[in-house]
Amino acid sequence: MPTTIYLAGPDVFLPNAIEVGRQKMAICQEFGFKGLFPVDNDLGVEADAAAIFRANCALMKRADVGVFNLSPFRGPSADAGTVFELGFLFSQNRPVYGYSNAPESYITRVAAAGSLPERGGRPVDRDGLAVENFGLTDNLMIVEAIRASGGAIAFAPPGGDASASAALETMPSFRACLEIVRQRFH
Amino acid sequence: MPTTIYLAGPDVFLPNAIEVGRQKMAICQEFGFKGLFPVDNDLGVEADAAAIFRANCALMKRADVGVFNLSPFRGPSADAGTVFELGFLFSQNRPVYGYSNAPESYITRVAAAGSLPERGGRPVDRDGLAVENFGLTDNLMIVEAIRASGGAIAFAPPGGDASASAALETMPSFRACLEIVRQRFH
Repeated sequence: MPTTIYLAGPDVFLPNAIEVGRQKMAICQEFGFKGLFPVDNDLGVEADAAAIFRANCALMKRADVGVFNLSPFRGPSADAGTVFELGFLFSQNRPVYGYSNAPESYITRVAAAGSLPERGGRPVDRDGLAVENFGLTDNLMIVEAIRASGGAIAFAPPGGDASASAALETMPSFRACLEIVRQRFH
Repeated sequence: MPTTIYLAGPDVFLPNAIEVGRQKMAICQEFGFKGLFPVDNDLGVEADAAAIFRANCALMKRADVGVFNLSPFRGPSADAGTVFELGFLFSQNRPVYGYSNAPESYITRVAAAGSLPERGGRPVDRDGLAVENFGLTDNLMIVEAIRASGGAIAFAPPGGDASASAALETMPSFRACLEIVRQRFH
């Protein structure tokens, strides 16, 4: 039985979500893994939300490993659904790995253009809320969970199509991540 | 032994984080619960991130229930660290509850001013990425996990100080949430 990998990420919101899911499952197979792709892409009426939730939880429970697309989504952090699933799988003692199109530190993205104000020598955002300043690429719970599980985060090399959709697919960093997973499991 | 409640939320980033934490723990005590407040507010150098992570995970494992401040944080969704912890505690079969300053649907916040474009009859954001349209207040994994655990989300009544910091504290909805928790556990 090949090692199974839950493929979490906001990929499900891409215009070509189904194709991206197939592509990621094919790449998993290349690496000797079986990819499990969530079903969020079947967006529909409210009645379906509970069914999608249950299906994704069931799929996570079948996974040996989680690989998370942590690319920033509608803000400086990873997608909320993806982060929920990271917490879920980490809590189930599964090794978790990430990949992302954004190698810079979290505070760099919050600052965007320009520098942040400070309060008591610590950086805050424009609303006066503290900004984590650990040099990590996202909230410490995300990055440290991956480290604690023995995982790692791979980042995309620059270049290619710069559209938001294309940046979110980030197959080069997905491949780089699977290469790291392979070194541990094969 | 009183029921213990893990008090998750971006409250740790507030200027008065320690005071807010004490206030929430005092309210817990009023309701007959013991509040456990995370230690993220001790923001410091990178070396501390792993220690904070371990301390928060240890604190979550001691909790009987999770109460999450799901108010939108630096984007249309709840804070990433908070959502990680929601996934973690849900996965540990703990009942999870939420409260928030934003009762409107997620899609309303993504749309902000104006309406969203559509693709194939479904709403997408300005980058062409699908927007969940279930009438839920956040990503379906968040809202459905709370429902599946038997929990609920309480929303703040309008009014009061409209600053971002004050809106994030949202003690009235925290109290409303504890009232719901009390009905189940006492």
